[in-house]
Amino acid sequence: MKVAGAWRRAIELGPDGDAVIVLDQTALPHHVRWLRIGELAEAARAIRDMIVRGAPLIGATAAYGVALALRAGGALDDACRTLAATRPTAVNLRWALAAMAGLADVAPGDRPDAAFALAGRICEDEVARCEAIGRHGLALLEAIGRDRDRPIRVLTHCNAGWLATVDWGTALAPVYRAHDAGIAVEVWVDETRPRNQGLLTAWELAQHGVPHTVIADNAGGHLMQHGRVDLCIVGTDRTTRDGDVCNKIGTYLKALAAHDTGVPFYVAAPSPSIDWTIARGADIPIEERAAAEIRRVTGTIDGAIAELELVSAATPVANPAFDVTPARLVTALITERGTCAASADGLGALFPEHACR
Amino acid sequence: MKVAGAWRRAIELGPDGDAVIVLDQTALPHHVRWLRIGELAEAARAIRDMIVRGAPLIGATAAYGVALALRAGGALDDACRTLAATRPTAVNLRWALAAMAGLADVAPGDRPDAAFALAGRICEDEVARCEAIGRHGLALLEAIGRDRDRPIRVLTHCNAGWLATVDWGTALAPVYRAHDAGIAVEVWVDETRPRNQGLLTAWELAQHGVPHTVIADNAGGHLMQHGRVDLCIVGTDRTTRDGDVCNKIGTYLKALAAHDTGVPFYVAAPSPSIDWTIARGADIPIEERAAAEIRRVTGTIDGAIAELELVSAATPVANPAFDVTPARLVTALITERGTCAASADGLGALFPEHACR
Repeated sequence: MKVAGAWRRAIELGPDGDAVIVLDQTALPHHVRWLRIGELAEAARAIRDMIVRGAPLIGATAAYGVALALRAGGALDDACRTLAATRPTAVNLRWALAAMAGLADVAPGDRPDAAFALAGRICEDEVARCEAIGRHGLALLEAIGRDRDRPIRVLTHCNAGWLATVDWGTALAPVYRAHDAGIAVEVWVDETRPRNQGLLTAWELAQHGVPHTVIADNAGGHLMQHGRVDLCIVGTDRTTRDGDVCNKIGTYLKALAAHDTGVPFYVAAPSPSIDWTIARGADIPIEERAAAEIRRVTGTIDGAIAELELVSAATPVANPAFDVTPARLVTALITERGTCAASADGLGALFPEHACR
Repeated sequence: MKVAGAWRRAIELGPDGDAVIVLDQTALPHHVRWLRIGELAEAARAIRDMIVRGAPLIGATAAYGVALALRAGGALDDACRTLAATRPTAVNLRWALAAMAGLADVAPGDRPDAAFALAGRICEDEVARCEAIGRHGLALLEAIGRDRDRPIRVLTHCNAGWLATVDWGTALAPVYRAHDAGIAVEVWVDETRPRNQGLLTAWELAQHGVPHTVIADNAGGHLMQHGRVDLCIVGTDRTTRDGDVCNKIGTYLKALAAHDTGVPFYVAAPSPSIDWTIARGADIPIEERAAAEIRRVTGTIDGAIAELELVSAATPVANPAFDVTPARLVTALITERGTCAASADGLGALFPEHACR
């Protein structure tokens, strides 16, 4: 999508083809800083230090990390092992590395070129999935937007935009599609404590020119009660085969409010996020993340990035990172193959190869 | 309640009787600073600059402000006018000043003493109401806590503790009562963005020795889903005669989660918070507060209080300060006269002098 007027991706092959360029997401939204990743260690560091974040983008970065290692004469095994150790729980990371490990079947001399080609294909597949989600989501927005004389107001939680993928994003893909198609759309952006990923969402929407408003996580229910939200669209970290949705902590509260007020609640769910091995969301283990995310907050003082202590070390804190929204609260899932009910039947019809019989 | 081991109140008459002492709540929880208010202008500033906050405490401070003005030879009218202009929407402020204005019937020479006496009575009435709410709430906790071998886990939102009243608090009064009675109780404290009043709640609980854990506002629903909350207790800024509850933004989301997961949701509602003129919560106007509350956040850097910019001026923000929890989501109201259903019948039975017939 657009950054400072130019079309960019969250990860791009450098002009000379021997490096990739990523946005430093630890500096966003305060500073815009593009980083060159020229070797394996830099790719590993980018993932580990959350310079890149979002499961699809992590997978793409790891794939290019392997390609860079091979170009420099490194061993395929070593590269995969180094990258796998960066973020132990990221599903796409493992999936991308498994794909790259398949290069063992390619003659060693051909591997670097094959690796860059495969990493590129992983990125293109990601973009294609997001584009398709955008297309199917656009149809939902068009149905809501027809015969209206005011913008469609979408509420979203966390960042499921192009910064978390390679381009388009998942939850935001329909928004970008609609905006680019000339449909007036405005976004309520949940701040998304404790890591404030909503500020990344606001940044990318601003870069692309999509009107938006940042709100505290507490505010969305009130806005829905007062008819100021037309629909919610969120992403998902993991979706069960029965349609329960595990996403950033707080998603469940917005789904409850949407259900209580009659606002449609959509989840953009690319197929790699669907876990066909689990039926009930309650069976998904929920990561408890570092207390520092609650205790400290990053912003700027006189334009310089600064961090302050919000909650002292003497105060106990808890930081569950995700929650589960039961399928009964989800109006529909938006996948790359189309929109379906959040249920085993709904998902089974779109993905018959995975359906339980 | 206790501060640094000593029993204190949020507002106290100074030792020589010619000043009041308040906690500077703009410095909490980072610094503990007691301020002396010796004259009208200081009382007005304390209210205007939110050195004191919470409707009951504002009312008490205003009452003493009038007394200080009269002691210094000021006119009753002028003092009331000055104080009324500090926070135009605070109900208790107006109510306390109306009571003080009644001193016009007292001979001018007797007014200063009468004013201090009346201000003291306003404080004692406040404390008595909170104590009674604590007593009635304690019975609810005892009923839950009987036959358990682990602590009762209460979730609360915002600060409805003694810092917001004069002593005990409203929502926290049952917690303090239970703790002092030797019942094991632990509190999940919502951070309560954007102003982070949850950190005040954590501070006062810590001072009194009540175990507690600060969580992001997004986390409470997840904790309820996993059986880690036994009950919710919140305060109320305004309660309608039909039992709808207007309270700090985000309260509605927690009430929805409590309802969805079968967790009792109680509202501590002292009678001055009940608005007998309004039936439907939807008719309560909701204050939109300053964008700066969303944009900026206060904490410490190396122990010194600092403020940083979280959301730049270029990003639109919205900041509704309250929301309405419909009576159907409220298990019961805890008033100073006892516990009742959140309904016209429930409130009417406890307050027959106000009941509509």
